[in-house]
Amino acid sequence: MGKIKVGIIGCGTIANSAHIPNYMANKDVEIKYFCDIIPERAEDAVKKYGCGKAVTDYHEVLADDEVDAISVCTPNNMHSIIAIDALNANKHVLCEKPAARTYDEALKMKEAQNRTGKILNIGVVNRFNDGVNVIKRMIDSGELGEVFHVYVSFRSHRSIPGLGGAFTTKAIAGGGALIDWGVHFLDIVMYCCGDPKPRTVTGETFCKLGKDMPNYVYTNMWAGPPDYSGTYDVEDSVTALIRSDGPVITVNGAWAQNIFEDEMFIDFMGTKGGIRLYYGREFKFYTAKNGALMETTPVYRTRDHFANEIDAFVRCIKTGEKLPSHIDTVIITAKIMQAIYDSAEQHREIVLD
Amino acid sequence: MGKIKVGIIGCGTIANSAHIPNYMANKDVEIKYFCDIIPERAEDAVKKYGCGKAVTDYHEVLADDEVDAISVCTPNNMHSIIAIDALNANKHVLCEKPAARTYDEALKMKEAQNRTGKILNIGVVNRFNDGVNVIKRMIDSGELGEVFHVYVSFRSHRSIPGLGGAFTTKAIAGGGALIDWGVHFLDIVMYCCGDPKPRTVTGETFCKLGKDMPNYVYTNMWAGPPDYSGTYDVEDSVTALIRSDGPVITVNGAWAQNIFEDEMFIDFMGTKGGIRLYYGREFKFYTAKNGALMETTPVYRTRDHFANEIDAFVRCIKTGEKLPSHIDTVIITAKIMQAIYDSAEQHREIVLD
Amino acid sequence: MGKIKVGIIGCGTIANSAHIPNYMANKDVEIKYFCDIIPERAEDAVKKYGCGKAVTDYHEVLADDEVDAISVCTPNNMHSIIAIDALNANKHVLCEKPAARTYDEALKMKEAQNRTGKILNIGVVNRFNDGVNVIKRMIDSGELGEVFHVYVSFRSHRSIPGLGGAFTTKAIAGGGALIDWGVHFLDIVMYCCGDPKPRTVTGETFCKLGKDMPNYVYTNMWAGPPDYSGTYDVEDSVTALIRSDGPVITVNGAWAQNIFEDEMFIDFMGTKGGIRLYYGREFKFYTAKNGALMETTPVYRTRDHFANEIDAFVRCIKTGEKLPSHIDTVIITAKIMQAIYDSAEQHREIVLD
Amino acid sequence: MGKIKVGIIGCGTIANSAHIPNYMANKDVEIKYFCDIIPERAEDAVKKYGCGKAVTDYHEVLADDEVDAISVCTPNNMHSIIAIDALNANKHVLCEKPAARTYDEALKMKEAQNRTGKILNIGVVNRFNDGVNVIKRMIDSGELGEVFHVYVSFRSHRSIPGLGGAFTTKAIAGGGALIDWGVHFLDIVMYCCGDPKPRTVTGETFCKLGKDMPNYVYTNMWAGPPDYSGTYDVEDSVTALIRSDGPVITVNGAWAQNIFEDEMFIDFMGTKGGIRLYYGREFKFYTAKNGALMETTPVYRTRDHFANEIDAFVRCIKTGEKLPSHIDTVIITAKIMQAIYDSAEQHREIVLD
Repeated sequence: MGKIKVGIIGCGTIANSAHIPNYMANKDVEIKYFCDIIPERAEDAVKKYGCGKAVTDYHEVLADDEVDAISVCTPNNMHSIIAIDALNANKHVLCEKPAARTYDEALKMKEAQNRTGKILNIGVVNRFNDGVNVIKRMIDSGELGEVFHVYVSFRSHRSIPGLGGAFTTKAIAGGGALIDWGVHFLDIVMYCCGDPKPRTVTGETFCKLGKDMPNYVYTNMWAGPPDYSGTYDVEDSVTALIRSDGPVITVNGAWAQNIFEDEMFIDFMGTKGGIRLYYGREFKFYTAKNGALMETTPVYRTRDHFANEIDAFVRCIKTGEKLPSHIDTVIITAKIMQAIYDSAEQHREIVLD
Repeated sequence: MGKIKVGIIGCGTIANSAHIPNYMANKDVEIKYFCDIIPERAEDAVKKYGCGKAVTDYHEVLADDEVDAISVCTPNNMHSIIAIDALNANKHVLCEKPAARTYDEALKMKEAQNRTGKILNIGVVNRFNDGVNVIKRMIDSGELGEVFHVYVSFRSHRSIPGLGGAFTTKAIAGGGALIDWGVHFLDIVMYCCGDPKPRTVTGETFCKLGKDMPNYVYTNMWAGPPDYSGTYDVEDSVTALIRSDGPVITVNGAWAQNIFEDEMFIDFMGTKGGIRLYYGREFKFYTAKNGALMETTPVYRTRDHFANEIDAFVRCIKTGEKLPSHIDTVIITAKIMQAIYDSAEQHREIVLD
Repeated sequence: MGKIKVGIIGCGTIANSAHIPNYMANKDVEIKYFCDIIPERAEDAVKKYGCGKAVTDYHEVLADDEVDAISVCTPNNMHSIIAIDALNANKHVLCEKPAARTYDEALKMKEAQNRTGKILNIGVVNRFNDGVNVIKRMIDSGELGEVFHVYVSFRSHRSIPGLGGAFTTKAIAGGGALIDWGVHFLDIVMYCCGDPKPRTVTGETFCKLGKDMPNYVYTNMWAGPPDYSGTYDVEDSVTALIRSDGPVITVNGAWAQNIFEDEMFIDFMGTKGGIRLYYGREFKFYTAKNGALMETTPVYRTRDHFANEIDAFVRCIKTGEKLPSHIDTVIITAKIMQAIYDSAEQHREIVLD
Repeated sequence: MGKIKVGIIGCGTIANSAHIPNYMANKDVEIKYFCDIIPERAEDAVKKYGCGKAVTDYHEVLADDEVDAISVCTPNNMHSIIAIDALNANKHVLCEKPAARTYDEALKMKEAQNRTGKILNIGVVNRFNDGVNVIKRMIDSGELGEVFHVYVSFRSHRSIPGLGGAFTTKAIAGGGALIDWGVHFLDIVMYCCGDPKPRTVTGETFCKLGKDMPNYVYTNMWAGPPDYSGTYDVEDSVTALIRSDGPVITVNGAWAQNIFEDEMFIDFMGTKGGIRLYYGREFKFYTAKNGALMETTPVYRTRDHFANEIDAFVRCIKTGEKLPSHIDTVIITAKIMQAIYDSAEQHREIVLD
């Protein structure tokens, strides 16, 4: 088997910081296309990485029989469209998170994957994070006993991205803080707790701080600067309570709030031990044994989780193995997020089958 | 009008630390009875405070026509029985929190109050806390804008009281961490947010860490020491999500958990500002104005809130004024807590009328 | 059974700081005698504690049939003489550490205990330390795997006690840093590792810094001040290597050295985990699991270890139970220390049977 | 005399980082051969340094009459074979540390040197370290008084090199932590204390953490990555006690241990002063004078010790001077290490003549 030929669809931040450099570092891969509807972005990539062809229409990539796989790095509204077209064109797909704007879109992606048999993995990169995997092994091996409650806190005080842009326009992004940040947190919970089935979901979303765009005070802005002529119709904060056949999950999240603390962590509360994972950083393990309360700070080898993710995608193209980021698994989080949005709209709890 | 004659029913910790010394300090009051089913406790109080008569049967107190008012300081299971008997005997009543073990018991207390016209106040002492009243005034005056979400966190890591005793026996206490600690936190939220009507309640309670009594590791214990021959059938932790016609309220509480942090606070999240109140301590006010994020630590005069509470009870006996601790108001919290317990039992959301 | 009558033999520092107050706090005990060859010390104790009779000759205590037990709190040279006399006089004995100056003296004490059947416990107080017991339980339960090596470091830079006094006179104390401090460290190792049998012992002792008394520079002195007319003929530092049927034990100890660090700890090195116990303080537990290195700081309930020790002595008088501080067990440390001193004298390894 | 012609035997890490660049920088030297059994390594060196000839058989180097000297930079098992062949071929030799795998091999090297009269120096590079030489001068001049005890601590918590490779295979390396790291520490002690004669040696070695290769947790690995199909039969830790006609030396060393501290230092304890040398870094000098305890941190000029070593080797080729790294001197450390290994095998002290 020769080198795997890859097309990059969407050449924005996540493509340049995560996908492209890790494909470049993988000796089994050759990038054949850089595609972006903004021509300069695609051309810049060709220049910068010294390979590939710049195109603006992703259909051109899919029409090339030599292309084995694509990475979908576009805004959320194009995820399902491109991914399904690619699967139908016989390509393997690595699609950035979230799977899609809605559960219905995600279901259609899953249906296309199941029908075509090609790979469809979602960019839930924390499943390739070394620290998260240590936690998963600890839970699997019983060190926490029964994990009966998880508290998810992704609360920041001034972090709305690109006010007025794609991130804050519901028709493009599908939602705000929940679909952008919450997807990672919920995915970590699902992964570490064995992908439990959700049973009931209740939640509320709040579009309160960003909507008065000119008066939104901030100190810096990622994916910025603000476009005051744009749209802001997504939630800047969210709260939810989810019952599953594993733990109960309580959620508080905010891109912005008037409590000026940033509390980004997940608490796994077990009968024998507990873990507080500081998102993107270290974790602490707590247990009680031999008459003493024990607080532990683990140290472990780490490698960039995007490198792990890309290498795993390439490996599974070659071996056919099913990764933990497969659409069949990741779709559960899409279902939960959809139920939170539905519950928030109806102001009542959603019972899932 | 001469001095108001008071009877103390139950001479344990809360009577000795809060009620008795503040009645003693109020020049309009005379304590006429100390009543406790443990004779030594009543006798010790007579000796210590140099007044009153020691009795073991509270009916003896109620039978005395000279007695104007009583304080109910017994375990929770006796609250409604004694309070109703006292109202029927034409006495004013200050009853310790929670109002009762169940919403039904609390309703009967309210019915007796409404029928007799005597005072029935509940010991929701935070309504007499100076810091809490500053917060209430700030919210009332609009400084936070719309308070759309409140996060209640009463999470401690090793604080189960008197393991195996009255606090941990459902038949006596009615519940665990929620009814013992949560009642104070929810009451503060209700009070500061204008006693909003609850609409939906979903919650789960967890009896996980204390139930294996011999293996419960702790470093110290209030209301201790443990009685390993006793009962532990209450929740050591709880989570809930409450919709109201005011803010959405998210709750996480624990007497004990395997996350070794103590996080005791209430976050009031408003559109214009927010407040984090550290329970029993100071608070911080956050707002964004004039292009700047402002973090403020208020300083104000304080007096012991139990002194305020007792003085207010005495004052309302004389003036007839309706206090914020009136059973009519406080019963809302009993309704919420009952709904949390019911929801936890049925694993589904409770819709309140 | 009425109160246990106790005689205190030796009313110096350890009697006043540890033995007497804890006997006073034990409701099953009455102190009947305070004995000291310095009459004022005995009389001061009678005045201070409001009980007992002051005497100067311990034979008077032993002659009283009402006395059930004695505490030996004298310098080391009197330990074996008084303890054996007391056992022969039908008294139970709690004798301060070390058991005696030499292994031969300790053997005679053991022989007297075995013959009379009365209790003879040694004041190896760390066996009643809550932290040490947590460590013992962890090792017993296999959390460290095989403990194959222990490093004992009791190195201080300027801590010679009472230069020129009883502590630094071999005829009285039997030795220096090893017999005074090392006894505690070795005893902790023995206790936590299941009292393993020693097999070979090699060691060297150094009498280097204190012997030039006038030029010994220090910043403060316990059991001081210096008596420049006195004797200094004990080791101020020691090193040893001990093989046992449990772990190998490496020892470095110093009352004084020209490295100005104080390193007082014991490292238990196991195949699965390790513990560093900071003497008299907290400990850390290290292990490697699930691909991560875990560093844990335990928290546990503690009570003064002297209180535990005295209460245990009183309890075993009443119940007959054999404590871990029994002479039969503690004598192993006396054997090891004797072998270190012998090895140092002969500059060769001692092989024990 | 023209340029000295040198052959490099073994072109791995130590050759490239230490020997070759310093020969290149010495104007009196010309490298004529790069020899390695892996042809690419030798060829790469020719390309990189722009000189010499690449060969795979060291006999070819020795057969060239123009070659004056060689550096032996191979794994330990080839040290004695190549060095002796070279001496017999009339070459001067600089052989990396340790001299050899065993004392017997080292003795044969010394015998060959003594017989041929050619130079045989060992790569005990610390003898050319400027800080170590300051310490040596301080001890020689009497500033520490009598150095009676030295404590050698080369304890790291996760530093096994190349698990499963040459370093951890006894047949190749001769041993583990002691022969790889301990050789440097013992050599510094020998050098600074005037190369005292050892009298008794007792020690134990532990092969405990690395031998279960798949479960050995680490965060990074020098000379890595692990080869799980390889061999691990060397000690990962060691302890020893050595008597000499100079100081007593106590040793604790570990490539890996379950105490997560890295304590790499040598304590020289003297009657007048002491020195703690942090290996490869600075040192502290402690003394007590004029009624005060003095702690001193010396500052001195330093040059890379490998540059010093190579220059000294070249100089002694020209002048015939005997360096402190001569086999006659360095062999004492080989004798001590052999005795530690023998003692560990026999579990008893070895008495040296």
